[in-house]
Amino acid sequence: MDIEKIDYLARLWIMEAATKIKQSFKETLDIDTKSGRNDLVTNMDKETEAFFVKQIKEHFKEHRLFGEEGMSDEVTDLNGVVWILDPIDGTLNFVEQQRDFSISLAIYQDGIGYLAYIYDVERDELYFAEKGKGATVNGKSIPKMNKTMDLQDALLIANLSVTKKFPTVWEAVKVSRGLRLHGAASLEYMDVATGRAGAYLSANLAPWDIAAGKIIVEELGGIVTRIDGSEINMLEKGSSIVAAPKIHQTLIDNYLP
Amino acid sequence: MDIEKIDYLARLWIMEAATKIKQSFKETLDIDTKSGRNDLVTNMDKETEAFFVKQIKEHFKEHRLFGEEGMSDEVTDLNGVVWILDPIDGTLNFVEQQRDFSISLAIYQDGIGYLAYIYDVERDELYFAEKGKGATVNGKSIPKMNKTMDLQDALLIANLSVTKKFPTVWEAVKVSRGLRLHGAASLEYMDVATGRAGAYLSANLAPWDIAAGKIIVEELGGIVTRIDGSEINMLEKGSSIVAAPKIHQTLIDNYLP
Repeated sequence: MDIEKIDYLARLWIMEAATKIKQSFKETLDIDTKSGRNDLVTNMDKETEAFFVKQIKEHFKEHRLFGEEGMSDEVTDLNGVVWILDPIDGTLNFVEQQRDFSISLAIYQDGIGYLAYIYDVERDELYFAEKGKGATVNGKSIPKMNKTMDLQDALLIANLSVTKKFPTVWEAVKVSRGLRLHGAASLEYMDVATGRAGAYLSANLAPWDIAAGKIIVEELGGIVTRIDGSEINMLEKGSSIVAAPKIHQTLIDNYLP
Repeated sequence: MDIEKIDYLARLWIMEAATKIKQSFKETLDIDTKSGRNDLVTNMDKETEAFFVKQIKEHFKEHRLFGEEGMSDEVTDLNGVVWILDPIDGTLNFVEQQRDFSISLAIYQDGIGYLAYIYDVERDELYFAEKGKGATVNGKSIPKMNKTMDLQDALLIANLSVTKKFPTVWEAVKVSRGLRLHGAASLEYMDVATGRAGAYLSANLAPWDIAAGKIIVEELGGIVTRIDGSEINMLEKGSSIVAAPKIHQTLIDNYLP
């Protein structure tokens, strides 16, 4: 796997896709009806994924793409090189807010994550990690996660889906410094990666929601598992808990089934 | 009241205060302990309010300041000109995230709001309204709020305090497009003002949390009341619901006591 070439092109394509997405903002704002806006975002999602599919086929014939829109290969294993893409993570935020959404891209080889990109389009912030080489945001090193940070020192992010399924999470929220909810999984992973939150819990995420975030968080010493503490199979949807190490242990031990 | 002079100086002082707050970021990040960080933010809060008190005393001898830190006059009426200030709204976000906090300033005369400033420090976005002259963000007009927007077309923002006190709010969340929670009242008012959210509900806010937001939202055609639909007395703490007009009606009629 030619990491340097992949990295160069991945960045180029993310920025090209982001430019198109930003151009669509004006259009979004001109559309008054909910269905019109939904159609637009569906189109932008599909267009972005199609763009990546085309580029990958052209430059990396043997690679496969595993994406939200399912426009490329049917992926039932992670053998060889697989690009895992969420063309717009946080589509509802894209439609309603024109902020707090991202392009999330991860490159896996034989099931192991090597490269991760999460681009917060509106803030113009590119989070990046390469396995074994740390993580950056816009080229600036992100410090390793705080190993001693306790639940009571941190903000928590939790979806309603998770609090509904596991009401004991409310107890964890009470112990924490407070609840936040931004509505884009990849960026909420980055809230944890940068220490803005101590943990983020969700009951049901797809591989493309978390593939890049998991690489970045783990590179910084954070922990990513299912809510029962088990390892994540990157081919299946499911729950996710991403947290600073001590908080992960506390949540698993005391607040989750 | 010399609106032009007040406006000129208010902007100047906000930017000067914001510069000091941003300088403190590095310091915040260097402090590892929770109590250390809390002390710093308390200091920044106080320092910012003291700065405004000093400037106002110097330039507008007859004006009073009503602020979170209570460093100036004891304000028990709104006669004359009163500056209502939250030096850092979203202090927890300031400590934990170094984003999603603001300086919130409103200028009232005889109980009527004339000027409002909410400065999102990290995003460098200044929301502004002058009574009767519309609202802007960084000088760009904010469009009037959508009068026909329904609950099912919009994101909702609600604090845990409000869902705990009024559990029926969960029903409204289910009908809406989803829940968000950013943790800074003034900026959540601006989410509603700009249409990023349809409504924001909170069970307990202080006058300085909402004084500026109320002016901006009302200037754009939005509705701000207590949760029982009554008018807000700007001298008292209490609940608040800020919403697009149709959504405000729907919430009051169907989801609140």
